[in-house]
Amino acid sequence: MSDAPTVRTQVHRLPERARYDRPTIDRILDEALICHVAWSAEDGRARVLPTIQARVGDTLYLHGSRAARAWKAVAGGAEVCVAATIVDGLVLARSAFHHSMNYRSVVLYGRAREVTDPEELLAAARAITHHVLPGREDEARMPTPDEFKQTILFAIPIDEASAKVRTGPPKDDEPDLALPLWAGVLPLVTRPGTPEPSPDLPEGIAVPGYVADARRP
Amino acid sequence: MSDAPTVRTQVHRLPERARYDRPTIDRILDEALICHVAWSAEDGRARVLPTIQARVGDTLYLHGSRAARAWKAVAGGAEVCVAATIVDGLVLARSAFHHSMNYRSVVLYGRAREVTDPEELLAAARAITHHVLPGREDEARMPTPDEFKQTILFAIPIDEASAKVRTGPPKDDEPDLALPLWAGVLPLVTRPGTPEPSPDLPEGIAVPGYVADARRP
Repeated sequence: MSDAPTVRTQVHRLPERARYDRPTIDRILDEALICHVAWSAEDGRARVLPTIQARVGDTLYLHGSRAARAWKAVAGGAEVCVAATIVDGLVLARSAFHHSMNYRSVVLYGRAREVTDPEELLAAARAITHHVLPGREDEARMPTPDEFKQTILFAIPIDEASAKVRTGPPKDDEPDLALPLWAGVLPLVTRPGTPEPSPDLPEGIAVPGYVADARRP
Repeated sequence: MSDAPTVRTQVHRLPERARYDRPTIDRILDEALICHVAWSAEDGRARVLPTIQARVGDTLYLHGSRAARAWKAVAGGAEVCVAATIVDGLVLARSAFHHSMNYRSVVLYGRAREVTDPEELLAAARAITHHVLPGREDEARMPTPDEFKQTILFAIPIDEASAKVRTGPPKDDEPDLALPLWAGVLPLVTRPGTPEPSPDLPEGIAVPGYVADARRP
């Protein structure tokens, strides 16, 4: 286990769950479908919104609408705190107190830079489309300059982040082990269902393999 | 569609997706397994963490550890912003720009009150255990006074909240409809897998029905 990059990324509560290595952090950022972005608004109070992200190397890209008031403070250079969380299972202990979840989460701090370079805009759009569904970035029509004007893409360096990971069975206190009560883990898995073609889809366009066989991660 | 309760809960971006009615808000808070809680820390910068919630009537309960630094500001009366988000599917449009997700989300503002009344503590612990897995609250051993001392339970009134809901197929621009490209929705469903008994489980304790047949919601 490496050290936390900064004081505020140091995990104090249950430090045995802390991970500071980039491969762990990157995998969680890649696998989590969405993230939650928090920032302090002009009134000093915190806001948080869900959005989609995509990682390209050492950069996390976030997607927002230019029309949304919410993103204006972020675009203005506010510092953000991003959380990406994957729940892998319910940890059912004998005691309510030791109930938990198996999860993998990342918290990332940074100042969001608005992406304006045309090449970087296109790379970020491709990365976000890939993040939604790998393979889609090769088929979807990429944004026009006018569409890019309606979108805000933010870049945050991945250099102040920590992860927390819990795995394994419940950890009950010794006296509770004799309780006549089932204990264990109930895994949770998110899977794609049956693709639903758009009502305006012309006949004869088959479901692509990357849609039919999609699995997360 | 009713009106937003306050200025900051008013949905400006894509207002046709806004919902301000309590049944919609309550159902999302009940169905989302976890939520993300944001607040402004002492340094004025936003923090966000995932945690578990449970709704009882007009109150949202949040669970934290007393040992966690993170919750101290919240316990001290800081205002919080809570987001609960459920992703129902990937919306695959012809254009990357119109890619979206079908989702249901709630954003709730409020000041967290620390729960200290013994009866309310027990009711909140039961509600949170029920939220994890309905039925578990009747079997799990409820917390002792000492365990309650290690836990922080917060109560937030559900009176300043808004929801956003997107459903249905992609909405492509007219010129893109002729592209030879599949478009539609790929639903995402989270389901429990096979229960994994704890290694320290005595033989002869069967998996309870509420575990074996668990479904979210």
